[in-house]
Amino acid sequence: MSKAITPREQDYSQWYIDIVLKAGLADYSAVKGCMVIKPYGYALWENMRDALDKMFKETGHVNAYFPLFVPKSLFEAEEKNAEGFAKECAVVTHYRLKTDPNNKGKLMVDPDAKLEEELVVRPTSEAIIWNTYKGWIQSYRDLPILVNQWANVVRWEMRTRLFLRTAEFLWQEGHTAHATKQEALEETVKMLHVYGEFAENFMAMPVIKGVKSANERFAGAEDTYCIEAMMQDGKALQAGTSHFLGQNFAKAFNVTYLDKNNKQEFVWATSWGVSTRLIGALIMTHSDNEGLVLPPKLAPIQVVIVPIAKNEEQLAAVRARMQPLMDELKAKNIRLKFDDADNRTPGWKFAEYEMKGVPVRIAVGPRDLENNTVELARRDERTKEVKSMDGLAAGIEQLLVEIQENLYKRSIQLRETMITPVDTYEDFKKVLSEKGGFISAHWDGTSETEEAIKTETKATIRCIPLDQVAEDGLCIYSGKPSKGRVLFAMAY
Amino acid sequence: MSKAITPREQDYSQWYIDIVLKAGLADYSAVKGCMVIKPYGYALWENMRDALDKMFKETGHVNAYFPLFVPKSLFEAEEKNAEGFAKECAVVTHYRLKTDPNNKGKLMVDPDAKLEEELVVRPTSEAIIWNTYKGWIQSYRDLPILVNQWANVVRWEMRTRLFLRTAEFLWQEGHTAHATKQEALEETVKMLHVYGEFAENFMAMPVIKGVKSANERFAGAEDTYCIEAMMQDGKALQAGTSHFLGQNFAKAFNVTYLDKNNKQEFVWATSWGVSTRLIGALIMTHSDNEGLVLPPKLAPIQVVIVPIAKNEEQLAAVRARMQPLMDELKAKNIRLKFDDADNRTPGWKFAEYEMKGVPVRIAVGPRDLENNTVELARRDERTKEVKSMDGLAAGIEQLLVEIQENLYKRSIQLRETMITPVDTYEDFKKVLSEKGGFISAHWDGTSETEEAIKTETKATIRCIPLDQVAEDGLCIYSGKPSKGRVLFAMAY
Repeated sequence: MSKAITPREQDYSQWYIDIVLKAGLADYSAVKGCMVIKPYGYALWENMRDALDKMFKETGHVNAYFPLFVPKSLFEAEEKNAEGFAKECAVVTHYRLKTDPNNKGKLMVDPDAKLEEELVVRPTSEAIIWNTYKGWIQSYRDLPILVNQWANVVRWEMRTRLFLRTAEFLWQEGHTAHATKQEALEETVKMLHVYGEFAENFMAMPVIKGVKSANERFAGAEDTYCIEAMMQDGKALQAGTSHFLGQNFAKAFNVTYLDKNNKQEFVWATSWGVSTRLIGALIMTHSDNEGLVLPPKLAPIQVVIVPIAKNEEQLAAVRARMQPLMDELKAKNIRLKFDDADNRTPGWKFAEYEMKGVPVRIAVGPRDLENNTVELARRDERTKEVKSMDGLAAGIEQLLVEIQENLYKRSIQLRETMITPVDTYEDFKKVLSEKGGFISAHWDGTSETEEAIKTETKATIRCIPLDQVAEDGLCIYSGKPSKGRVLFAMAY
Repeated sequence: MSKAITPREQDYSQWYIDIVLKAGLADYSAVKGCMVIKPYGYALWENMRDALDKMFKETGHVNAYFPLFVPKSLFEAEEKNAEGFAKECAVVTHYRLKTDPNNKGKLMVDPDAKLEEELVVRPTSEAIIWNTYKGWIQSYRDLPILVNQWANVVRWEMRTRLFLRTAEFLWQEGHTAHATKQEALEETVKMLHVYGEFAENFMAMPVIKGVKSANERFAGAEDTYCIEAMMQDGKALQAGTSHFLGQNFAKAFNVTYLDKNNKQEFVWATSWGVSTRLIGALIMTHSDNEGLVLPPKLAPIQVVIVPIAKNEEQLAAVRARMQPLMDELKAKNIRLKFDDADNRTPGWKFAEYEMKGVPVRIAVGPRDLENNTVELARRDERTKEVKSMDGLAAGIEQLLVEIQENLYKRSIQLRETMITPVDTYEDFKKVLSEKGGFISAHWDGTSETEEAIKTETKATIRCIPLDQVAEDGLCIYSGKPSKGRVLFAMAY
């Protein structure tokens, strides 16, 4: 298979798919809408999961696991939530197959094994979890509950896009229960900041933190906070959401607690999640026409060593000379691969690891051994230099830090050029079609205006930034007064 | 809620459920057959998962993720496998709900959203994975594939028993592809040994490694290897299986490769798995009438410190004095909890941590501070002693090792008393009804005999042990010649 990928400039969407497939991150499957996450993609997800999980635990959360299925009667209990997800859910109606009498060797759904009540494959778990919390919460002493779940969820999608839009995806969903509104609000914002920190520190992906407009809110939430990232093609990507659910689910499932004064109160809720969609965001933030570019903190392989050897003897010499370096790197917990596969040329390997976004590549051959040097290439800037073997481990450790910082710096520089303030609807449409990116504009705060703009331009309000500056202005669409700018964009 | 549990002697099955519920491991859910794994139970599973995952990676395996759904046409491709699971699978037939016109606020399955092809919720993933491998394997260079998946699976069960038998459970399933029969066989046995090592070193649970008889084989396997554990009530529990699948799945999905001589060959397969069922095995191996007993290597909390204080000042004094110990324990990566909750008495906490199986408990009050001592209790033997604070961290570290060893020693001693050789069918039935445990007996090797014994006694052949001694004998049932003893038992 040729490793060449479609250039970004030519077809961004094909460029993206080419990278996903050719870097070995994911694959299409025989199940419409579902993907296979391949080992390299899954290793990336494991690194993301582990980093997030640590942050969740450090902020006092614990993991648990709730059923995959939601009985229809529970699913429909919180009406807005149900309405939001009913149109895209997989429904289990039977619990047995039987031999098809008219079709030798084939099976058919056994009509005698129809479920009394249909089961929805969870598109999100508020319903099943709040029905469970009912049994866990009696008094204020049982609060807060700070639980997270790592799970698969299913939202039926007709159009598939690997990682970005698939019927089944992996995610985490935090579901917390609190005695007071204040505490729930604080949790909502705290987790938004955890997501922001993860995006910036680990993914090297700048994000804007904000609040969704009513139109874009999670079904069943009172408020949805989000982190919004900007992709290289000028489209925004919602990278994580944290919802203040008010008492909606507590009321739907009758979850109350006795407060310190022995008064019965409804419980306050939050939920928050990020998914394998983040992998899509990561790809589109850093990669280039040579393939994937990965930030060192998340890269499954941080350093690859490619020996250049004409024969077994040379290979053995390279390996022997590299061993102390490898030991040192491993002692520093650097994820390392020594690729001595003999059925591929060094050139093939260079292209392969470039495609896979390995941050640092070391090539070393007989001449290097003589000179006590290696050739060191960094993936982010695609530069190469000859380095002495002395002090190399420390140098590589430092270089990984530098690459991480450089990727973030590059992305934030690009992102800054992608926020355009406009003051008229004409300019809005012009910027949207010619440049894209975030458009910072005044909005009158009504759903009608937002809806009209969306219908006319396909752009949506990505968020009302948390750091919105108070500024009197006029809505670009209605001309009505506005107190500050919001961010519009085309979005994934 | 009272924390007292039903004594083992009185009702073993209720004792088990009491521990699961009162130690906070799991809970029933609103979905028939599905459980909620509570935070404490999930933390235990995380420790088991992490230890196993490390062993899988050390033996060259990588993780990946495949779709939850298996289209019916793929599900039925390997006939024996399909036949084995058809009777217990959840089937998705629709992808949308809609408002029920006759029932305000309710939803109904949208008849217009019927799937063209039904989807089976995976009961195991051979079908979807081998259909995927078809695209990954062309030549011998693509082999072996050593992939594992951590996932949820669904097998419809009418009778639920938390952890032991639930419709949905969590597990890992390894699916490997090999060029030769020999290599696949070696992989099958290698993973059996990995499971054995995990059971013995981490769970402190002795297991017998063996091969299943044809009757007990995995549907679609040529041979099923297993580890079998003995529970305190004399019933066996299959704790893990490793299957040599031959070329069955390769033939069903037409997965071939070009060998070095350019000859097209079918690929050889293995699969192997353990599940949250192991938690049930762990409980029943070590626990007692006070509750759960956990081996230190897997315990979510290894050491709990309970301060005894009448007021804030005393509590502060205890905390200050314990801080260096806690720092030392944390530096040793010992999982520690300092429980200073002020709404529970020390006595309540003692009972709680006993119920939760925390291996080591330290109690410390004002008198201890004067004497430079603590009270140290070990959960396994339920003994207490007063210890000097000097050198305590090292002593605790050593004690955790001792407890781990003691649990294994205790279990293996019990297990040894639970293997009874018998030479007549009369004795067989007598031992089975009066004592239980493994019964080591000669068997003629036929499915008919096995089936007859099962029908008459409910006992099954748990395995033909790998270390079976060659010994001429006569089948206890048919009187026909036999070359060695196999292990029968009643089983979970």
